[in-house]
Amino acid sequence: MAEELDTRATIVRAARELMFERGFDATTMRAIADRAGVSLGNAYYYFAGKDDLIQGFYEEIAAAHQIRVREAVRGKRGLGDRITASLEVLVEICEEYAPVADALLTRGITPNGPLNPFSAQSSRPRELFLETSAELVAGARLRTDAELRAALPELLWLVQLAVTLGWVQDLSDDKAVTLRSVRRLGPMLGRLISVARVPALRPFVRTMLEQLADLHIARPDWSGVERAL
Amino acid sequence: MAEELDTRATIVRAARELMFERGFDATTMRAIADRAGVSLGNAYYYFAGKDDLIQGFYEEIAAAHQIRVREAVRGKRGLGDRITASLEVLVEICEEYAPVADALLTRGITPNGPLNPFSAQSSRPRELFLETSAELVAGARLRTDAELRAALPELLWLVQLAVTLGWVQDLSDDKAVTLRSVRRLGPMLGRLISVARVPALRPFVRTMLEQLADLHIARPDWSGVERAL
Repeated sequence: MAEELDTRATIVRAARELMFERGFDATTMRAIADRAGVSLGNAYYYFAGKDDLIQGFYEEIAAAHQIRVREAVRGKRGLGDRITASLEVLVEICEEYAPVADALLTRGITPNGPLNPFSAQSSRPRELFLETSAELVAGARLRTDAELRAALPELLWLVQLAVTLGWVQDLSDDKAVTLRSVRRLGPMLGRLISVARVPALRPFVRTMLEQLADLHIARPDWSGVERAL
Repeated sequence: MAEELDTRATIVRAARELMFERGFDATTMRAIADRAGVSLGNAYYYFAGKDDLIQGFYEEIAAAHQIRVREAVRGKRGLGDRITASLEVLVEICEEYAPVADALLTRGITPNGPLNPFSAQSSRPRELFLETSAELVAGARLRTDAELRAALPELLWLVQLAVTLGWVQDLSDDKAVTLRSVRRLGPMLGRLISVARVPALRPFVRTMLEQLADLHIARPDWSGVERAL
């Protein structure tokens, strides 16, 4: 099992290296197998094709994000600071995967595709991201509405998706706008979440939570592993 | 000039009919020219290819949206109600163009593509949408922060883009979630915009406006025709 995971990770790494060098389209499964030091048949045992490898990138990204966020938020107790740190790590990782960003975007945006972030097939990376979000909230000094607090991991994951889409669309030099946006967004979300416990704002919170519940109806596979248990 | 516009519109209509019957990929420029009753050369005089025709769809959509929204908001004075009505029309039009939605999505989402809603080439439909948004605001009984009010047409256009993306991703029966979301979103935005004049909320408004200004840096072609004057 551990060996299987190693081979799998080796193939993903080889694919990443080659695609970063040559681009997604110019990279063949044969070249990936050669670079990984496995047979072509073995590569196909793990991945049905290049598209399937993108799922491997998602897992790499979600795992790297979790490790680096844990590091980045150490000692930070304000939720806003923790959100900013987590989004900064996300942007950093987007930069690293920039050579395959177009391939990831066009496949990820396809509503029924296996690489859509809400799909059943994407449940592993999604659950990892949700776990990281849950840790962000759990480690924060935070007073807010209890129901909102419970929904925060999912809401923060949606924020992450929006930031990723914004990063892709950002044509400013060095994606400077995305970085400024993230540094604006973290503190603002922190304040909004904290102010949400004011009774006058309860209707807005309720509407948000209704909306979130509805999104699960729009994307039934979102439920993922843990929810299904 | 009027004749040119007619021919152009006839070709777009023919393309739409054929693509709705056969799908985007199975529709050739020759078939479009035949259906429109023009020569192939004439079709290519107006449109460089099928992708370019999508720009024609955008214009059709923006024009249809404007006409129907004017009708739908007649007599409505609350901004929330007006936003809801405008988004309901948008969803209705999305349904009508559903057969080519995938083609529009994959091309529209491409960051540097001519069919991206922020591109220079999309300025005509974009300006139409912005004009419709401006009318939504101008016709509303509304007290809010003056700077926010000035920014509302652009903010509402961004909301429209988000709703369109949400519609595409919505897998619920008859896109029921999108329709419920729109009916939640309109009133909520109406209330948020009205509450924005409370001095305690000024920092949030300021942050939003900074963010909007920054988005223009991220997408320099967004400025469009009017701004460039």
